[in-house]
Amino acid sequence: MVKVGIIGAGRIGKVHAESICTRVKNAKLKIIADPFMSDETEAWAKGMGVEQVTKDYKEILQDEEIEAVIICSSTDTHSAISVEAIETGKHVFCEKPIDHDIEKIKQVMEALKKTEVKYQVGFNRRFDHNFKAVKDAVANGKIGDPHIIKVTSRDPEPPSAEYVKVSGGMFLDMTIHDFDMVRFLAGCDATEIYVQSAVLVDDAIGEAGDVDTAVITLQMENGAIAVIDNSRKAVYGYDQRAEVFGSRGMVATANDSLSTAVISNEQGVTGEKPLYFFLERYMDSFGEEMKQFIEAIENNLDTPLGVIDGLKPVLMGLAAKKSVEEHRPVNISEISF
Amino acid sequence: MVKVGIIGAGRIGKVHAESICTRVKNAKLKIIADPFMSDETEAWAKGMGVEQVTKDYKEILQDEEIEAVIICSSTDTHSAISVEAIETGKHVFCEKPIDHDIEKIKQVMEALKKTEVKYQVGFNRRFDHNFKAVKDAVANGKIGDPHIIKVTSRDPEPPSAEYVKVSGGMFLDMTIHDFDMVRFLAGCDATEIYVQSAVLVDDAIGEAGDVDTAVITLQMENGAIAVIDNSRKAVYGYDQRAEVFGSRGMVATANDSLSTAVISNEQGVTGEKPLYFFLERYMDSFGEEMKQFIEAIENNLDTPLGVIDGLKPVLMGLAAKKSVEEHRPVNISEISF
Amino acid sequence: MVKVGIIGAGRIGKVHAESICTRVKNAKLKIIADPFMSDETEAWAKGMGVEQVTKDYKEILQDEEIEAVIICSSTDTHSAISVEAIETGKHVFCEKPIDHDIEKIKQVMEALKKTEVKYQVGFNRRFDHNFKAVKDAVANGKIGDPHIIKVTSRDPEPPSAEYVKVSGGMFLDMTIHDFDMVRFLAGCDATEIYVQSAVLVDDAIGEAGDVDTAVITLQMENGAIAVIDNSRKAVYGYDQRAEVFGSRGMVATANDSLSTAVISNEQGVTGEKPLYFFLERYMDSFGEEMKQFIEAIENNLDTPLGVIDGLKPVLMGLAAKKSVEEHRPVNISEISF
Amino acid sequence: MVKVGIIGAGRIGKVHAESICTRVKNAKLKIIADPFMSDETEAWAKGMGVEQVTKDYKEILQDEEIEAVIICSSTDTHSAISVEAIETGKHVFCEKPIDHDIEKIKQVMEALKKTEVKYQVGFNRRFDHNFKAVKDAVANGKIGDPHIIKVTSRDPEPPSAEYVKVSGGMFLDMTIHDFDMVRFLAGCDATEIYVQSAVLVDDAIGEAGDVDTAVITLQMENGAIAVIDNSRKAVYGYDQRAEVFGSRGMVATANDSLSTAVISNEQGVTGEKPLYFFLERYMDSFGEEMKQFIEAIENNLDTPLGVIDGLKPVLMGLAAKKSVEEHRPVNISEISF
Repeated sequence: MVKVGIIGAGRIGKVHAESICTRVKNAKLKIIADPFMSDETEAWAKGMGVEQVTKDYKEILQDEEIEAVIICSSTDTHSAISVEAIETGKHVFCEKPIDHDIEKIKQVMEALKKTEVKYQVGFNRRFDHNFKAVKDAVANGKIGDPHIIKVTSRDPEPPSAEYVKVSGGMFLDMTIHDFDMVRFLAGCDATEIYVQSAVLVDDAIGEAGDVDTAVITLQMENGAIAVIDNSRKAVYGYDQRAEVFGSRGMVATANDSLSTAVISNEQGVTGEKPLYFFLERYMDSFGEEMKQFIEAIENNLDTPLGVIDGLKPVLMGLAAKKSVEEHRPVNISEISF
Repeated sequence: MVKVGIIGAGRIGKVHAESICTRVKNAKLKIIADPFMSDETEAWAKGMGVEQVTKDYKEILQDEEIEAVIICSSTDTHSAISVEAIETGKHVFCEKPIDHDIEKIKQVMEALKKTEVKYQVGFNRRFDHNFKAVKDAVANGKIGDPHIIKVTSRDPEPPSAEYVKVSGGMFLDMTIHDFDMVRFLAGCDATEIYVQSAVLVDDAIGEAGDVDTAVITLQMENGAIAVIDNSRKAVYGYDQRAEVFGSRGMVATANDSLSTAVISNEQGVTGEKPLYFFLERYMDSFGEEMKQFIEAIENNLDTPLGVIDGLKPVLMGLAAKKSVEEHRPVNISEISF
Repeated sequence: MVKVGIIGAGRIGKVHAESICTRVKNAKLKIIADPFMSDETEAWAKGMGVEQVTKDYKEILQDEEIEAVIICSSTDTHSAISVEAIETGKHVFCEKPIDHDIEKIKQVMEALKKTEVKYQVGFNRRFDHNFKAVKDAVANGKIGDPHIIKVTSRDPEPPSAEYVKVSGGMFLDMTIHDFDMVRFLAGCDATEIYVQSAVLVDDAIGEAGDVDTAVITLQMENGAIAVIDNSRKAVYGYDQRAEVFGSRGMVATANDSLSTAVISNEQGVTGEKPLYFFLERYMDSFGEEMKQFIEAIENNLDTPLGVIDGLKPVLMGLAAKKSVEEHRPVNISEISF
Repeated sequence: MVKVGIIGAGRIGKVHAESICTRVKNAKLKIIADPFMSDETEAWAKGMGVEQVTKDYKEILQDEEIEAVIICSSTDTHSAISVEAIETGKHVFCEKPIDHDIEKIKQVMEALKKTEVKYQVGFNRRFDHNFKAVKDAVANGKIGDPHIIKVTSRDPEPPSAEYVKVSGGMFLDMTIHDFDMVRFLAGCDATEIYVQSAVLVDDAIGEAGDVDTAVITLQMENGAIAVIDNSRKAVYGYDQRAEVFGSRGMVATANDSLSTAVISNEQGVTGEKPLYFFLERYMDSFGEEMKQFIEAIENNLDTPLGVIDGLKPVLMGLAAKKSVEEHRPVNISEISF
């Protein structure tokens, strides 16, 4: 039984807490820390059998029973708490992104070099049933050598301009998942990136210095070409698809919806919209990533996504920004690291 | 917090136990009883935080803290334990069927008349996302007046001849779910039934006096005609579909599968098979029926499926048997009750 | 080059005329006869290069160059003109049904016994791309032994009560195609039939002594059970599907529509309705049946559908009527022949 | 009745000939010219009722009865014959591309300035049922303002290296259709293009100086971003899809296949491959473009695709080549015209 502490009891912290309590057999959630711990959150935690709640995450790090820490605090604290947790010998699951600043990710990498603790980054989509099926088809040779990789990723609603300003921009906030997905499906890194982007959804996003629509082309190390299309607003829901085309065939996914029911009437033949919200769409994947994190600890295995997998999509995001600024294809190696 | 006891720790008992522990917020599983309680089962129960395990279900009935009982014992004990639990004032969730013998179901009905306890029967498919979407479309008038109701229900693997002998036959063992579904979708009862059946899957089933393939036509009270097609063996998995056609349109479902991934290659365009096993196909529905049972207790509501809903499909199953024996349409009222 | 005459220039006569002129390479349409031949029809015929039009079909039978006759006149004349054409040594393609009266079909059978001319009945759906694909899958063993055969056949609009009165009733007018389809897909005859029917679409149909909704169960000679569901009115268009389930799998079709375009918006994910009208849905099949008729003549082959294939669905239709009247399963052999 | 001559009796010339003879009511094909006119071709032409065949296309231009000319000769003769035909006052339907050389297209444009003859270019895909449905959805505002336009266009088999050498390269030979499609769906021109391309299908194509795989990003005048993905070889058949995503929704097409039949068995749920060959996939569109050409003549309307629509995709193709050579986004205006 791996005893776990969660740092940050916001939306994603709660998701991980519930996963550990209901879906992960070999883990026990002992402590939850949040600087703004409310009575309501405390009641929720106690209802799940969590022993202890605190406003001070250091209580988790100091607790000798705690083997693993789940970092769900605000993004700007991920890297510092990661380093701190690593140095106290805790295994770390860190929500994405580790940081937008490469230097800070490097500090986490440095801290990890000195220890044997496990480190996993929260790119949960790799654990989604649909994307996993695509990856498996590619990995099992079902489609031969990959030639073209396509990822469609469109949010149901744009963020506020306030959020946009502190988010690091669409490429580091939203596309970062797609960058990880492209690496996952290709089984290799990107070498070059070109972005065609626009502000078509909300002028306020443009005024905040960001874009809301993009088509991103990537040259992959294995020769394949990848393309991501992003929008901050798909009125029909959360559009999350992938397609890999190769020398022996193609694998492609459709969206998930609430049911398979289809109504035929005078208006046409109508099925349900894609699931609207990332939590309902990806709930199972959050449980699965946590399972694999705990298994890696128990069986002393590599985590499925290490610190390098947290770094690479940030490099890609920074290269994407540079491509937009300089309106040209940018080699990933141009991003100093 | 409704304190609950489960009687019977077999496959379905375990499903309900896990539902209560991980999916039903306002219930607490206190005791699990099973005459063959093993060390392994005990460890599993303790791991979920169950206080007490026992070989004697009477301990549950005698426990004053226990408000509700989930009966998952062998079918032949359902009615007797139901009566016993009702008489001790416990709310009862009883797995389907209550009994194959109408007289015994009547005894449960009699017991219920004298009390205010809640009684729910475990026709879980009503709580499935796909079938619920069909029902909602019908109930909301999306397809107008129902004219034709079609239920396809095919198991992935036939039962053993031994099981067939004690099962009450396909109509009471397997089709009983479909009889409930037809009532649910039509929103009314059947008045007449005609069965065309055959032994096409396994001769041993025929030798055991049963059939393994059937097309069953039902006249519904509201004028609609329903048709169920059953097979004990669909090599591609568990085939569970419904279609309702009416004056203003049609609603139909497809099967669920593990992912939406589709592979296109020289052989064709291939998607995943339907989920193979009823537990993976219907897992969420088991949680949902339990949630609604607990809610009915907490808020003093009618349960979504009362004892009468347990009775009617048995009457339909007995009428189906009679239709086969006498090779003619049988009015449900011919089954003495 | 097979020279052909068409008797009857109504809707279906025109379809066959256009097929011969544009799709059948080895046939030449020489004469079209229709008692109500209009100037418009004459112009249309001449525009296609037809040499001669006439009000008197006997001119076709007397023309020595004519090798084959397509009978598209009113149903009550099919059998008499068939006999007449056979006796003058012409090959005959006769629209379905040959007649509703078994005696008259027998006369055609008698006439054929004395000659070597080809005779084909116009059950065009056998030549449809979708139904042919189902048949091929069954015939090639892709689904093993057939266990359950399902045909859904729903018209987009009900006929007028006036038409209903002279139509022979739904089973001989509409279901007759489905009876042929069941024989085609099963590869054998039905032995018994049971009908559950209702008047749910239009009371005037009931007042005219007919039904408009039915579920029809058939026992097939090879052990399979077939079920047809019919409605005279599907508001979403012409619903024409088939499914064959067997020991090694299932083959099923969906409807055809005008395009594969699907619109996702706030209302859902909406594709096009099925094609509305039988002529647009089945146009290619009319060309294909005609091609095969001409090929049978040219290469002295059996036609794909002989007079017996014209007879059997009529027997099934009469048995269906008897089943409704006597409210019981009826053996096809009860229909005296 | 518009009398028509066809210049060039190769594959596409034959398609247009058959369209005119069987699908276009108001046109009559009088003469077919081909320098390599064979006996077989002559017999085929006569069989369709064509009056005259010749090796010399000038006979068509000199025939005063001929109102319209269909140019299906080799690409390098398209522009010169176009000019010649225009100057003799014939309406012209010219197969795509008019030429790869902008100067030669300009000569056609100059010739047209002096006359009133109709000129149409053979981008047949605009007349395809699926792409037309997408265009209609966009044009009718069903998806709001277009934001992202995606065209997938993959051939079933790569051309020979010999063909590649004379083809003008993939962008002018194959992608040219997709460039037209992007203009058609967007309803405006592209301003800039960026190409990521590779040789992944056949090294011989690379040795011939061409590419066989590409992802092409286009900035459209209306603000939308378009992306085309191309491959010279999709083993599963001819992959021809489009998707337009906008402020109010998305419209997308799937491929056409021979039937809707789907087989479910132990291997999965398998539908038919996309139609393999462009002639079977697009046959109806060839008939439709010809109908509209003849209608434009008869009713003195603009043709649906004028000479400018023949020019623009060539400019885009040349810009694409430049983007590959210079590895940067290229403004279409950089292509001198």
